[in-house]
Amino acid sequence: MIIVLKNQTTLQKREELIDWLRSKALDVHISEGQYHTVLGLVGDTGSIDTDMLEGLEIVEKVQRISEPFKKANRKFHEDDTVIETDTFTVGGGGFTLMAGPCSVESGEQLTGIAKAVKASGATMLRGGAFKPRTSPYDFQGLRADGIELLLEAKKETGLPIVTEIMNAQHLPLFEQVDMIQVGARNMQNFELLKELGRIDKPILLKRGLANTIKELLMSAEYIMAGGNEKVIFCERGIRTFETYTRNTLDLSAVAVLKELSHLPVIVDPSHATGVSRYVKPMALAAVAAGADGLMIEVHNDPAHALCDGPQSLTPAQFEDLAKTVFKVREALR
Amino acid sequence: MIIVLKNQTTLQKREELIDWLRSKALDVHISEGQYHTVLGLVGDTGSIDTDMLEGLEIVEKVQRISEPFKKANRKFHEDDTVIETDTFTVGGGGFTLMAGPCSVESGEQLTGIAKAVKASGATMLRGGAFKPRTSPYDFQGLRADGIELLLEAKKETGLPIVTEIMNAQHLPLFEQVDMIQVGARNMQNFELLKELGRIDKPILLKRGLANTIKELLMSAEYIMAGGNEKVIFCERGIRTFETYTRNTLDLSAVAVLKELSHLPVIVDPSHATGVSRYVKPMALAAVAAGADGLMIEVHNDPAHALCDGPQSLTPAQFEDLAKTVFKVREALR
Amino acid sequence: MIIVLKNQTTLQKREELIDWLRSKALDVHISEGQYHTVLGLVGDTGSIDTDMLEGLEIVEKVQRISEPFKKANRKFHEDDTVIETDTFTVGGGGFTLMAGPCSVESGEQLTGIAKAVKASGATMLRGGAFKPRTSPYDFQGLRADGIELLLEAKKETGLPIVTEIMNAQHLPLFEQVDMIQVGARNMQNFELLKELGRIDKPILLKRGLANTIKELLMSAEYIMAGGNEKVIFCERGIRTFETYTRNTLDLSAVAVLKELSHLPVIVDPSHATGVSRYVKPMALAAVAAGADGLMIEVHNDPAHALCDGPQSLTPAQFEDLAKTVFKVREALR
Amino acid sequence: MIIVLKNQTTLQKREELIDWLRSKALDVHISEGQYHTVLGLVGDTGSIDTDMLEGLEIVEKVQRISEPFKKANRKFHEDDTVIETDTFTVGGGGFTLMAGPCSVESGEQLTGIAKAVKASGATMLRGGAFKPRTSPYDFQGLRADGIELLLEAKKETGLPIVTEIMNAQHLPLFEQVDMIQVGARNMQNFELLKELGRIDKPILLKRGLANTIKELLMSAEYIMAGGNEKVIFCERGIRTFETYTRNTLDLSAVAVLKELSHLPVIVDPSHATGVSRYVKPMALAAVAAGADGLMIEVHNDPAHALCDGPQSLTPAQFEDLAKTVFKVREALR
Repeated sequence: MIIVLKNQTTLQKREELIDWLRSKALDVHISEGQYHTVLGLVGDTGSIDTDMLEGLEIVEKVQRISEPFKKANRKFHEDDTVIETDTFTVGGGGFTLMAGPCSVESGEQLTGIAKAVKASGATMLRGGAFKPRTSPYDFQGLRADGIELLLEAKKETGLPIVTEIMNAQHLPLFEQVDMIQVGARNMQNFELLKELGRIDKPILLKRGLANTIKELLMSAEYIMAGGNEKVIFCERGIRTFETYTRNTLDLSAVAVLKELSHLPVIVDPSHATGVSRYVKPMALAAVAAGADGLMIEVHNDPAHALCDGPQSLTPAQFEDLAKTVFKVREALR
Repeated sequence: MIIVLKNQTTLQKREELIDWLRSKALDVHISEGQYHTVLGLVGDTGSIDTDMLEGLEIVEKVQRISEPFKKANRKFHEDDTVIETDTFTVGGGGFTLMAGPCSVESGEQLTGIAKAVKASGATMLRGGAFKPRTSPYDFQGLRADGIELLLEAKKETGLPIVTEIMNAQHLPLFEQVDMIQVGARNMQNFELLKELGRIDKPILLKRGLANTIKELLMSAEYIMAGGNEKVIFCERGIRTFETYTRNTLDLSAVAVLKELSHLPVIVDPSHATGVSRYVKPMALAAVAAGADGLMIEVHNDPAHALCDGPQSLTPAQFEDLAKTVFKVREALR
Repeated sequence: MIIVLKNQTTLQKREELIDWLRSKALDVHISEGQYHTVLGLVGDTGSIDTDMLEGLEIVEKVQRISEPFKKANRKFHEDDTVIETDTFTVGGGGFTLMAGPCSVESGEQLTGIAKAVKASGATMLRGGAFKPRTSPYDFQGLRADGIELLLEAKKETGLPIVTEIMNAQHLPLFEQVDMIQVGARNMQNFELLKELGRIDKPILLKRGLANTIKELLMSAEYIMAGGNEKVIFCERGIRTFETYTRNTLDLSAVAVLKELSHLPVIVDPSHATGVSRYVKPMALAAVAAGADGLMIEVHNDPAHALCDGPQSLTPAQFEDLAKTVFKVREALR
Repeated sequence: MIIVLKNQTTLQKREELIDWLRSKALDVHISEGQYHTVLGLVGDTGSIDTDMLEGLEIVEKVQRISEPFKKANRKFHEDDTVIETDTFTVGGGGFTLMAGPCSVESGEQLTGIAKAVKASGATMLRGGAFKPRTSPYDFQGLRADGIELLLEAKKETGLPIVTEIMNAQHLPLFEQVDMIQVGARNMQNFELLKELGRIDKPILLKRGLANTIKELLMSAEYIMAGGNEKVIFCERGIRTFETYTRNTLDLSAVAVLKELSHLPVIVDPSHATGVSRYVKPMALAAVAAGADGLMIEVHNDPAHALCDGPQSLTPAQFEDLAKTVFKVREALR
């Protein structure tokens, strides 16, 4: 870390800062310039708050050289991480195709969709049991019953399941869930992340609506610091000024995450665009950008199930998408 | 609510939509234009998801006429809400001046600050016991011990206390806390909001970093729908492209919130700007904009307490700020 | 257009508004509801300012049903527009591959790059002569001399050229330029757009850094309203909170623009990401998303030409990119 | 400027970079750490492009220590600049109150408003003759005729006038205009800024909708570098995700600009909020934040002049605003 001091700094204040830094077990190298003094810190600066330093009256600028994330950092883990369980594998050159309805509605609905998407090549079943909704008056999901239905669909089709958690107290219900999703609004629910760091189950960590990639990496770090290193990133669109799409899918995040981290990256074009017509082009773009997998909303009867999201594909549309996805992957070999 | 249908809509799909809307106990008025058909819905449309409707293939646009928030809405509660407990009052023409350190560090520190800010006119003591931090390696607060120290400072000075909760399971620790703060990152932690809706204690709800005012109102609605109507809004800056300040204080939110809702509004210029030099001008601006109170970070010895935020004022600076705040309020009578 | 009136509206104010609307040659249909009165307008509402209406005290909401863009609108021009000149074609199922240096530096540099990129499949040569720079102290381009060098490279290689204009008074210099680029910072320089509407030459219109797709369409409309309908959109990244990339490439804009408009869409991953390592994955993603072409920065000797952008590829990297682009296009047939 | 090199850098590439930096007349101080090598540059780094450096493969981070703006920088001009002409003064402790209609409509309208606002304390008359509009089909202003009407109103009332320029070719029409405004959409129209740098007339430079304060300072630098140092900043709201207000007024920009620069700062709450009800609280907040003046939209007959902006005040509302503004200024002495 480098600290640039203002040139009107008094020696006393400077000494106080240097003493404090040394009390944190850091080596401090001082280099005096014509206009500025620069302090170079060597040692573990992970716990130093740059915002705090930048706010000090004598400090002009602070520049962190090392990244504050460690366990998620490719620098300390060169090879791609492959998440393997007895039911599925994510990363390692394979492709994970998660599909299913936004909300679990009934057993019949879910099993129907599960069978259809499996036939088209899906490798996991997704479905919401606990639903985060902006309004308390909106449908909040089938909750525990929804998880029951997911487990039944898993039994019937063999597809491993992924579903969202909103409250660490619900963890006992997720015992047999294959992958637990943390939604965008909970990406910085640090208390929840800490709890998920204590279990041994893959976590699909969605990027928050207005969060940077660095913040996403730091949230992965919360889970990994607790001992659970099975984290998978999910890019699902960020908030921008654009209104024709619900959010803006940031596909460059795939390239950035693959460079900075060794963890796998999944893309969710359904929630990102919020419009079923845009799901296929964005799914193909995600594959071309290097994603390790996709999460796609599929509903078996959108005509009658008005409550399903506008971003859902029919099973037939999903089949077409999956075929083209495999063709693009083939072209990129 | 108004739904504009595309002009190439088939009669059958239109009828399906109308039937579904009527099944939701809504009256549907149809008016046919040259290019579009418009459906006007009368009844309780609160639970209708406009995103879902906009995604339907036959729908061109959806326009909600009534606001989706009810209990927080001034339309149904014309008079300003005054939050009154046996220890303090917020709203109703009075001014709430919350002050204290970012993090509780020690009893001595806290009591010293509490006495100083009380002498300058503060009406509440703020201090962080549970600290939300982007990095798992940063100081996470004194937690339960921090709350103990706040309660001691309260006993010694008589100042009611406000402090942040991050996990509903910690609620028993907050029994004697006078006001519970929900931080920006938890504004849409709906599970936490629901729990806070079940207790009878004022909640200071901070606006999320990239959340709209409507979303803030909906989060208040989560708390109020559970029965706890003692909600106070806190504008604390939103994320923008500007980097000279940590966030951008949105003071027009004060005027908008006072118009749309009957609940009181507090402004936190310390976290918004992140720079102590900007706290006073922004505090005065907040008062001029009509805020019901301020939340200000104060630290008694910023020179030695490097860990305190750069946005902290010294007790002397706070005294100066408080005096000018009272002068501006006087001018606005 | 639909106007929802507040329910406490006096009859007189309502009549004034209706009279004014009728004076604009609009039919006004009135439908009274229990809580609101809704005015439906039929006729050419293009010149009605919705912001103005929404600001009127008696108005609750305004909803435009028709899009305010006409000439760029696919509704009035169903087939894809193909831009054809005697030197090149954009759109119509073909692929436009623009490549070249950020800034024109010398004849040798430019011709070297032009030959190399042509050999790899480029169909147009790009190069900056007039450079928009945030700082007045930064290199502003070779200006008129740069255009001379571009024309020489065109003569030598046969590649048509595209370069940016910043001032309508420079138009005489662009006489032999094949396509004129409007940069992101000039997307709403309406006086410049009007001048470009009066000439007969294809315009590459780049999306502004914080502009919506609708605003981009309206800027195309400025050019087209003047008579020049040869407009090509260019998505080049938008400003977001992310800092690992210079801007965020919004690839869903490709799908949205192709749906709303009949005009071709080009993607510029070099400026969007600002990092050469991310150019290839984003170029492939753009192709998969359905772009009609790419604009790629290529520099022949990045090692010694420090002034060239960090987003530049070497000719060898460009060759590799072009080959993979063609493979993905093949897979998508 | 400080450049941090990656630790796997080859000596040759490092030498190439250092040679190149020295060729730019910079002293390069090298300090080797365990993990990184840091280059400290001394000399005029104003023309070095940090984006370019950050893109180099061997560079980890670049940190500019000095600000890239010089003439606008308070470091080189400690005292506040006071803009004085024979008709008005801005800055220096006085208060500039600009008022008038959004668009000039007729002589009668304009003179009526001018007389009214002068009586209430306005010191300048504002009014749009050339209007930047998102749509080519919207009213574009009275243009040259509008300036004529402004000059007539000036003659009649003695109020100096400020109006917007959109095209440097129109400059001859602005000969007798007292202050020329550059609108938000032209803040980075560098060709226009350069032309305005060659004249001797105060320029009111509005902040772009999504521009940072640093970019605003750099645009002032464009004008000042040309020789015209009479620049006045205008904060008029930035684009955020909030929709209840048209833009978000960033009042902390006032404090930041006053600290970083010696130039005066004006605030425009009318365009920022877009809602007349919010103009007064935001005007008072701007005064409390330390603004040198306000720009307020006033229309003499909003009831019948439907085309005027929803953000306009009536002359009576303006009188009330002005009175309270003066009271707050009094309180802050």
